[in-house]
Amino acid sequence: MKNILKPYKSGFTFSYTSGAFATITLLQTKPEIIKTVYVHSDFKDIRLVAMLCEKAGVLIERDDYIFKRINQKENTYVLGVFDKYASLLSPLKPHVVLVNPGDMGNLGTIVRTLAAVNLPDLAVITPGADLWHPKTIRASMGSLFRIRFEMFDSFDEYREKFAGHRIYPFMLDGELELNTDSCPRAEQFSLVFGNEATGLKEKFKQYGTSIKLKQTQMVDSLNVAIAVGIGAYVFSSANGLLK
Amino acid sequence: MKNILKPYKSGFTFSYTSGAFATITLLQTKPEIIKTVYVHSDFKDIRLVAMLCEKAGVLIERDDYIFKRINQKENTYVLGVFDKYASLLSPLKPHVVLVNPGDMGNLGTIVRTLAAVNLPDLAVITPGADLWHPKTIRASMGSLFRIRFEMFDSFDEYREKFAGHRIYPFMLDGELELNTDSCPRAEQFSLVFGNEATGLKEKFKQYGTSIKLKQTQMVDSLNVAIAVGIGAYVFSSANGLLK
Repeated sequence: MKNILKPYKSGFTFSYTSGAFATITLLQTKPEIIKTVYVHSDFKDIRLVAMLCEKAGVLIERDDYIFKRINQKENTYVLGVFDKYASLLSPLKPHVVLVNPGDMGNLGTIVRTLAAVNLPDLAVITPGADLWHPKTIRASMGSLFRIRFEMFDSFDEYREKFAGHRIYPFMLDGELELNTDSCPRAEQFSLVFGNEATGLKEKFKQYGTSIKLKQTQMVDSLNVAIAVGIGAYVFSSANGLLK
Repeated sequence: MKNILKPYKSGFTFSYTSGAFATITLLQTKPEIIKTVYVHSDFKDIRLVAMLCEKAGVLIERDDYIFKRINQKENTYVLGVFDKYASLLSPLKPHVVLVNPGDMGNLGTIVRTLAAVNLPDLAVITPGADLWHPKTIRASMGSLFRIRFEMFDSFDEYREKFAGHRIYPFMLDGELELNTDSCPRAEQFSLVFGNEATGLKEKFKQYGTSIKLKQTQMVDSLNVAIAVGIGAYVFSSANGLLK
């Protein structure tokens, strides 16, 4: 196994958790998909990782060299190798949809946020940043393994599969300004956000009531992870999902 | 000038805008503090930058070498050199206070968010990430130049200066769960957030009503920039600052 491990590419059938936090989260949530855990000789307190590995029946190996091969830039001392798995959105729950997300840091932060505000169903319309990339997983603090997610080749493919969901595209010129009073109530809603640079195309207005987060003229727009955080928190809270 | 320019250090009396967006924002908001603008020979459309520099009476120089010296990692083609300036918070407006912020990316994203949601008064309690760092300015998309900001050596120093402000520390076990109905109304309020890793110390509860952003147990906490985004949006909206 060691000899063939290379830096991650999106075509791989497996990926890596980079760092103790993400690896521990993986060990606690989905131990069955882990192949091996590697620890660097500089890793100070190995006890928790060792205990979780033993409990899960996962092989733990000490190896410094692999960290140079796999890790780009980050100084991490724990690495987990795991098999990708099939994940499906819940058809009964509300969703958040990201259309062609551009940045892995934003994407991972969004995953973490959705887990926190009880909207753990994430659809990604490809092409875009890779949910399975070690950088995305790291930015999510390992919370990717706690949510449901699904990738689609087009927004139409998503819409056909979940035809009963009410679509709310977030746009700078959205027709409905969002606050807790104005926030729509629905059993199944889809909060849709566009790419960081381009936003959503005009055609998205036809899919449902477009939502605007009120802003000053001092900036072009909110960072997409911030916009998702605000939108998801308000919708979740207004729809009684955050008790 | 060129010969002495080195990678930024927080002790410098000047700093850099790295990239076209941040440099253009600086040219549009505070041209008087700019010393020089450098452009790389690969920079495609120089017209806007050249026009703004001429209008501001700022020297524009073509130089490829400086980008290797100053820029770490980013592929940018425009660099502005500017003098740091004194900025003061408005005593009449609400503030956001960051206690020992740890990450420049989060800090810059917070600056951008506060400009967007009409809370453009930011206090930073040092030590912590540097508002003047090119990475922070870049993450803020240059919106640092559109807000008011002030640094303090301690939270007590901030509190003494703005004794009339109502303090709302954001804490995981805050006493008041935040939504638009429950959101406090005040002329001058201070939304206080702690360090990404440690949060705010228990003593902050004595300064005012502590605020909780409702969360599931799926993650340890929200990313601090997300927490600021949600808290700032709800307070701004509830207090009639986002019309």
